[in-house]
Amino acid sequence: MNKKKFIPKYLIVDVDGVMTSGHMIYSESGKKYKLFGPDDSDALKIINKFLKVFFITADKRGYKISKKRIFDDMKMSLLLISNIDRLKILSRKFDLKECIFIGDGIFDHFTMKKSGYSITIADSLDHVKRNANFVTKRRGGNRAVAEACLHVLKKFFNFNIENKFSL
Amino acid sequence: MNKKKFIPKYLIVDVDGVMTSGHMIYSESGKKYKLFGPDDSDALKIINKFLKVFFITADKRGYKISKKRIFDDMKMSLLLISNIDRLKILSRKFDLKECIFIGDGIFDHFTMKKSGYSITIADSLDHVKRNANFVTKRRGGNRAVAEACLHVLKKFFNFNIENKFSL
Amino acid sequence: MNKKKFIPKYLIVDVDGVMTSGHMIYSESGKKYKLFGPDDSDALKIINKFLKVFFITADKRGYKISKKRIFDDMKMSLLLISNIDRLKILSRKFDLKECIFIGDGIFDHFTMKKSGYSITIADSLDHVKRNANFVTKRRGGNRAVAEACLHVLKKFFNFNIENKFSL
Amino acid sequence: MNKKKFIPKYLIVDVDGVMTSGHMIYSESGKKYKLFGPDDSDALKIINKFLKVFFITADKRGYKISKKRIFDDMKMSLLLISNIDRLKILSRKFDLKECIFIGDGIFDHFTMKKSGYSITIADSLDHVKRNANFVTKRRGGNRAVAEACLHVLKKFFNFNIENKFSL
Repeated sequence: MNKKKFIPKYLIVDVDGVMTSGHMIYSESGKKYKLFGPDDSDALKIINKFLKVFFITADKRGYKISKKRIFDDMKMSLLLISNIDRLKILSRKFDLKECIFIGDGIFDHFTMKKSGYSITIADSLDHVKRNANFVTKRRGGNRAVAEACLHVLKKFFNFNIENKFSL
Repeated sequence: MNKKKFIPKYLIVDVDGVMTSGHMIYSESGKKYKLFGPDDSDALKIINKFLKVFFITADKRGYKISKKRIFDDMKMSLLLISNIDRLKILSRKFDLKECIFIGDGIFDHFTMKKSGYSITIADSLDHVKRNANFVTKRRGGNRAVAEACLHVLKKFFNFNIENKFSL
Repeated sequence: MNKKKFIPKYLIVDVDGVMTSGHMIYSESGKKYKLFGPDDSDALKIINKFLKVFFITADKRGYKISKKRIFDDMKMSLLLISNIDRLKILSRKFDLKECIFIGDGIFDHFTMKKSGYSITIADSLDHVKRNANFVTKRRGGNRAVAEACLHVLKKFFNFNIENKFSL
Repeated sequence: MNKKKFIPKYLIVDVDGVMTSGHMIYSESGKKYKLFGPDDSDALKIINKFLKVFFITADKRGYKISKKRIFDDMKMSLLLISNIDRLKILSRKFDLKECIFIGDGIFDHFTMKKSGYSITIADSLDHVKRNANFVTKRRGGNRAVAEACLHVLKKFFNFNIENKFSL
């Protein structure tokens, strides 16, 4: 892959651990809450003008929570895909060489290797970090996605938030 | 601006990510909880004797949660202002050169540049930190506002909590 | 005070920010939850054999939450005392020179100065840390009290958990 | 013990503070929630093919929460054992020399000393860390168990996730 010529068309973002802190808050009746963080939604609104954003999740039990945040509140697309089949199913839906993938899961290095550009977060497992093109300084649910978006905007679209929007 | 002559009249404090940890706790039915932290309320009671404190929030969906904490429980003023219009609306209400602004959002560097003095928190995005006059060591919802207040009290009002209130 | 001769009789532990993470989880209807942490309860059961443990809290709105944990579940004493009157009221109830005080609040340095021995936690404000005899490496609600108890047991009672209880 | 010949048969994993962040979320009516983290469940599914995994908990009041996650959702075995009797009861059920034990509690160093191999997490108390064969870089409820599993898989079973499952 020639990075200089790579123009990403899609941004695929894992929900749990990336958009959230990864924590599942359990009561006696099961998985009840997830923690989403600041800045990510605002950053995604900016990057969405440059490429198309898709969210994926492997969490069946917490799907309705993620759907509430991503689809109902943020008005973005969410696909439910198991962790282990992730690469196979994504490969059918996308040309991964045109995609930027942001993931944090224990199996995500396989998808990263096939993606045009891959990003993971500060708290991922070491082998996941080793296989990512970029590792955010910030943790999931703690502005990691916002940091990743600003990095992508600068690197691939020559967009710098410090200069734009200036009033 | 001549810092030596600057006497702040207003302290404008963003709620989400500054007074809170930035986390939004979601259930299947939407945004349910926010995490407020220790010491901030006590520090604001002290600084409120030296200047006037206003809170702002861009969070419509979580507005009632912030209102409960800031307006009902802490008895302080809270304004609902969108992230992107923040600078425009604040500029109409305040002479920003008389204001200290504490923010953490992805667009807050624009407001910071126009404020008399600007503060952000340890976990803000890098471009936000670069545009603040002071960055707290502590994170939002983890005594960042208390630290900021003690800094302002010392810097602009010559007030040192270690000497005062002594019994 | 001659530290070598100091035998503490009481351990006074602040609840919010010391036994908890300091976070107050708010919903639209107000303060709903607090986060207590691991190991603290077990460590307090050990130290309670060497001196008498009292808990204090300044949190009126969250009092029932703290009472549930400290009094109902841990079976320990809990006193509701305002932050600002803390030193005055504690001085009436205790000879503070016989007390170890563990606090984290913005006004707690005044109580610390009068206590036989004072402890604060990793995330306290700087002036609080400067006035404590010992600062835990751990944060409130993250084993800070357990660390403080083991420190006190070793320093004042020559008790080392690595040697005792051995089976 | 000759480490080279040690083939672990059982993995005994403490729930609170290891599988969770250690936080107990309290309301006025008591312990309501615990925070479980990402990657641990996926890593345990892999290691479960190499040895038998058991979970233990000392938390009576929060037992139903742990049971919901571990037994109902993850379909794994969970034993309720008090902190102080832990070593005695585990010794009756298992030959601890055949076990890997992952614990974080204030008394867990006694069980660690008797186990074939012992692991603790980044945020344990110092004496617990000193008595563990391996300390994870990650904290409980923040991928500590996933990190521990990958370590064990590599060390004792020559299994490296970066090479396996490759597509």
